Amino acid sequence: MIDIDPASVAHDYIEAVRQEVAAMSDPIRVVGMIASDDAPSLAYARATRQRFADVGIEYDLQEVERLTLEESIMAANADPDIHGIFIYFPVFNNQQDSYLRNLVDYRKDIEAGSMYWVQKLYANDRFAIAGDSSRKALLPCTPLAIIKMLTALGVYAEDVERPVAGKTVTIFNRSEVNGRPLAVMMSNDGANVYSFDINGPLRFENAKPFETRITRQEALAESDIVITGVPSKSFERIRCDEIKPNTVCVNFSSHPNFEDDITAHTDIYVPKVGPMTVAMCMRNTLRLYRNFHSHHASQ
Amino acid sequence: MIDIDPASVAHDYIEAVRQEVAAMSDPIRVVGMIASDDAPSLAYARATRQRFADVGIEYDLQEVERLTLEESIMAANADPDIHGIFIYFPVFNNQQDSYLRNLVDYRKDIEAGSMYWVQKLYANDRFAIAGDSSRKALLPCTPLAIIKMLTALGVYAEDVERPVAGKTVTIFNRSEVNGRPLAVMMSNDGANVYSFDINGPLRFENAKPFETRITRQEALAESDIVITGVPSKSFERIRCDEIKPNTVCVNFSSHPNFEDDITAHTDIYVPKVGPMTVAMCMRNTLRLYRNFHSHHASQ
Repeated sequence: MIDIDPASVAHDYIEAVRQEVAAMSDPIRVVGMIASDDAPSLAYARATRQRFADVGIEYDLQEVERLTLEESIMAANADPDIHGIFIYFPVFNNQQDSYLRNLVDYRKDIEAGSMYWVQKLYANDRFAIAGDSSRKALLPCTPLAIIKMLTALGVYAEDVERPVAGKTVTIFNRSEVNGRPLAVMMSNDGANVYSFDINGPLRFENAKPFETRITRQEALAESDIVITGVPSKSFERIRCDEIKPNTVCVNFSSHPNFEDDITAHTDIYVPKVGPMTVAMCMRNTLRLYRNFHSHHASQ
Repeated sequence: MIDIDPASVAHDYIEAVRQEVAAMSDPIRVVGMIASDDAPSLAYARATRQRFADVGIEYDLQEVERLTLEESIMAANADPDIHGIFIYFPVFNNQQDSYLRNLVDYRKDIEAGSMYWVQKLYANDRFAIAGDSSRKALLPCTPLAIIKMLTALGVYAEDVERPVAGKTVTIFNRSEVNGRPLAVMMSNDGANVYSFDINGPLRFENAKPFETRITRQEALAESDIVITGVPSKSFERIRCDEIKPNTVCVNFSSHPNFEDDITAHTDIYVPKVGPMTVAMCMRNTLRLYRNFHSHHASQ
């Protein structure tokens, strides 16, 4: 059993951010906006603020009403002293959340969830501004966190063009924010990816989707890596008898998506990626600052 | 009973488009994209193509696979000989549809459903390009169709700043594409608007949303205008005993949302707005062409 602590993997990334921030002459300022009075969500938001503060990034956590969030986002977009914006979703838990996500100025979009960045991801465009190779594009925090975690685990080969070539991956979650970008990124990195959500399966190869009729059981039996992100108690948790021995298992949902005895069947089980996600958000914040807000960035 | 035929109300708008198109030296070319083999949806798409052709707009209806739609949209965005794009939704029936909607170049977005136009709508910005009063912004086709219908019926006062001042409106549907823009537009036009969806009610006043605990019964009992767009058989159809006499009733859903005897209780009942919506799509197509594609439009 490989003892994998997401917090310790995150540590190196966080240290790198801390050192870069310390070397800067001007402060980086971000706002987090939460429109929820759910206690665990607020606790999570306050913990995030603390982690940002710990590396020297000023993090103003605004607790707002959901109906004023739109206004708050626009005010933060317009404020030159704010360099990054993070929204705690879900807010309305419907299409309006997609509207709000896209309302964030891409130059301040820490999560890289707005169309500007999503289109670059799907187009495999690596630059923040077309033609300027000095400014790198942002990637969404959770998919990036998962890939960095797999890299730390040695599952992703380093310094090769297709680091998961020949591997089969199954991902449960095809949201626009997490599961679909992750499927595109991993298939772009060489994997054959089966993607499941309530609408059924798709297969991704070389960043392109294909129709498939594969079942959950067939996909799991084939997979070297299984990644879950189903925030629902009704999801049938993945059992030992469904996966190959030593399948790499990663859950990024707040709910357990694997049976508790999964570690009897695999050496690599990552039960949560939250700390890595926060580290990637910090990394994105720094990238936004360098790309768009520092003295050296031309707008 | 006012005999209101949406097709006849649409006729004037369509005639105006036909005359403008006839006066043009170059053809206007649009593509419609449908990724569905549902027979009624295909029939609707083919009828739309015919209507566009009837006014002299070249309408290329592309029947595509859902997984190639993304590529088709990008190809149409890049093709200078295409001046407008219309996507038949739903495609995936999840967040991915919002992604596809936003993928359409705003200069070709007939439905005005992408963020560029939605943000202008919510900001009450009337110009397609900031500071250029010669190019008018686009509004989404269905909300616009409803307002033009209410204008034709005399419910909307003409040539006044707040044409529904003092009126109370209830709208069932708060989608990002139809119900929410309609609520914003009508409240901006002076109405007090109650907006219902499965997440509960909101109230809109002067284009701003407010929390409310009003019930369906209370809202209906107060309303001068009731507008429905619930594409579900499980919606409890609106009954005569729920509305005031002569409430203006409009349904834009493909399902009947009012009880069949509703006309016993009101003089103005519009059972569908489809033909007006198509007319508004033509109008938007022309506006896109004038704003962005004609010889006179500077890009």
